[in-house]
Amino acid sequence: MVSSLNMPSSRLLISDREHRERISKIRALMRRRNLKALYLTSPTRILYATGFAHITTERPLAVVIPTEGPIFLMGPHLEKDHVKQETRIIEEMFEYSDYPGKLHPIRHFAKILGSKHLANARIASDSFEGAAGGWGYRGPSLREVLHGAKLFDGREIVDEMRIIKSREELHLLRESAKWAQVAHDILMESTSAGLRDVLIGLKASNEALQRLLGKLGTKYKQLKWGLSPVVVGFRGQVGPESAIPHAVFTSRKIRKGDVLVTEAGVEIGGYTSELERTIVVGKPSTRTRKHFDAMFKAQAAAFKAFKPGNRCDKVDDAARKAIETAGFGECLRHHTGHGIGLDAHEPPWLDPGDRRVMRRGMVFSCEPGIYVPGYSGFRHSDTIEVTSAGMEFITNYPRELEELTV
Amino acid sequence: MVSSLNMPSSRLLISDREHRERISKIRALMRRRNLKALYLTSPTRILYATGFAHITTERPLAVVIPTEGPIFLMGPHLEKDHVKQETRIIEEMFEYSDYPGKLHPIRHFAKILGSKHLANARIASDSFEGAAGGWGYRGPSLREVLHGAKLFDGREIVDEMRIIKSREELHLLRESAKWAQVAHDILMESTSAGLRDVLIGLKASNEALQRLLGKLGTKYKQLKWGLSPVVVGFRGQVGPESAIPHAVFTSRKIRKGDVLVTEAGVEIGGYTSELERTIVVGKPSTRTRKHFDAMFKAQAAAFKAFKPGNRCDKVDDAARKAIETAGFGECLRHHTGHGIGLDAHEPPWLDPGDRRVMRRGMVFSCEPGIYVPGYSGFRHSDTIEVTSAGMEFITNYPRELEELTV
Repeated sequence: MVSSLNMPSSRLLISDREHRERISKIRALMRRRNLKALYLTSPTRILYATGFAHITTERPLAVVIPTEGPIFLMGPHLEKDHVKQETRIIEEMFEYSDYPGKLHPIRHFAKILGSKHLANARIASDSFEGAAGGWGYRGPSLREVLHGAKLFDGREIVDEMRIIKSREELHLLRESAKWAQVAHDILMESTSAGLRDVLIGLKASNEALQRLLGKLGTKYKQLKWGLSPVVVGFRGQVGPESAIPHAVFTSRKIRKGDVLVTEAGVEIGGYTSELERTIVVGKPSTRTRKHFDAMFKAQAAAFKAFKPGNRCDKVDDAARKAIETAGFGECLRHHTGHGIGLDAHEPPWLDPGDRRVMRRGMVFSCEPGIYVPGYSGFRHSDTIEVTSAGMEFITNYPRELEELTV
Repeated sequence: MVSSLNMPSSRLLISDREHRERISKIRALMRRRNLKALYLTSPTRILYATGFAHITTERPLAVVIPTEGPIFLMGPHLEKDHVKQETRIIEEMFEYSDYPGKLHPIRHFAKILGSKHLANARIASDSFEGAAGGWGYRGPSLREVLHGAKLFDGREIVDEMRIIKSREELHLLRESAKWAQVAHDILMESTSAGLRDVLIGLKASNEALQRLLGKLGTKYKQLKWGLSPVVVGFRGQVGPESAIPHAVFTSRKIRKGDVLVTEAGVEIGGYTSELERTIVVGKPSTRTRKHFDAMFKAQAAAFKAFKPGNRCDKVDDAARKAIETAGFGECLRHHTGHGIGLDAHEPPWLDPGDRRVMRRGMVFSCEPGIYVPGYSGFRHSDTIEVTSAGMEFITNYPRELEELTV
């Protein structure tokens, strides 16, 4: 299947060349384990391996990478023209009419695998169910319909590759951060007492997307489903509600003196960096200054702990100790950060339970936070790259309280 | 745990009373199967049973409904204050510091279940993994850490209840449709040649949300994570790209003569109806009229097939036959529709493979479509309720070509 689209390499997408290199690496890892095929169902892993982005529903869809022979997709009829248009990496498609269908799609998939001489082979998969299993999906497992095959857990084949970011990935993450910074500026300019945070965010997202499309034109392509590839706002983290790290919404209008926690993310070629700031409306109180300062110092301490050869848990230690020393130990609600790339959160984790050693090219959010119920939360999040010198910022945005007062 | 929030019953949310009734029904179903507890991990099932909405991440979170004794949540420390604030149905919370942690959260959960005398009990769960398994989650399964227990598939206990909508659910779906219609009006008024569809959608979503918040004020609460609870736009379904049912984005500006496919959804108390229209920019060509007409008649044929006692596949038959009779059989790409409620797609399915009998209170999308690659796609989607008379529209919006020309 050859794409009818002529994609200039200047587009902000992972190149076909890099996808082919990824496939080669995947196949080398498969050969080492004497596997005949890798059966992928996760939309993120399919996107990573092939560049094909799709809306995951209850309809099963799988991409199969055999060690030898064409890469093929098995999926619903409604994706047929889409696959043809979007990717050169997937070489064949086998379709079923729709889910649930008279013959269950997974049984259909088993027949196709049979026709590919894979029914009795050693196969790795990221799901023994054989499907991503969204919404109201039900079905027999791949194990049940493929009794002759030897199935292995194949998640790490792709996921270990994802941990070290390539030059192309770092480029997309930096472009993402650049536009997140533009969006955050617009957000701050639009923020004042008396307004609803959700409306400020939506308006700022719209303005930032206008600027992005105006500048990038057809170089830009949104890959992931969503109202807007630019998401900037507060997610309800307004005043006392900012003390809820995973708040969703608040009816409370912004007031003078409020502490707000922001978030800005822009999807570029599937990749989204993370930029979050604690901002204050009007003159910060002494109490606010004290908490902000503790959070600021904890993030600074964490930054110093990034270094190839150091363990991930040491970054969390550094932030935690700074917060405890400042006397805010009971205000901790979460660890210091997470890997980031095609998924918003991915391994490794900056957590006491992750002793993985850092390497150059890993990318993390760094976001120690402190939370005082009924009063406020305080968290900055930056995206950082582990470099030979220690770290480099992917997000470059003001961090000081004076610069974050509106 | 008693909520500090005083929620007036006038809010657009499922009442505590209905959640208590749901819990009673769940417990009755559990007793019939001699189960001691239901262990839920899916955010939708947790929301349905308890009204608690949360952002699902790699961090395991489970709500346990024992047949006797308090309903409890096991989850990350960062949700503690959130749970306390949001729900009166969940009576206890047991927390772990963060994921992955020094002791894996699932092992922590097993200990808590032990302290609740459930380690050797008959337990139903919607996930034998013990976690929703988002992003980079890894862990031992519930089966592995709870060897003494007898585990059963508990998905249907909640999901069968979800199929027939209650009066409160129908009320929220109607309110959702009402605002989707407002949003769709704004979208149509904002659409013209020369514009980018994603920007029209984002602007119209913002305007519609402003009106909604202006009218509903604190009665409204967004439960699900997202930039905006109002999503109206085209999702890239512009001109030839409208022939891709699951398109995500297009760089192509809208042109005179284009066929566009819209979508409008507004989340009210977790519920979102579905409203989609095929609209035309400027005077429709004869070819466009012919295809539009075939789609229109297929939807009309489908509407007539809704009736308590009829089978779901018969609705799909009716639409499919109308399309085939019009000579567009090869333009079919998907079945006629799906159940809808807390999830955007949920069973039953209007599909040849679903022979379930329709009952009063079921809610479906009705959306037969035809697609001509390189030219255009044609699809209206309405949300309908099965009533004793046959069906009633939840979405009430013009369907005729003349009314849908901008």
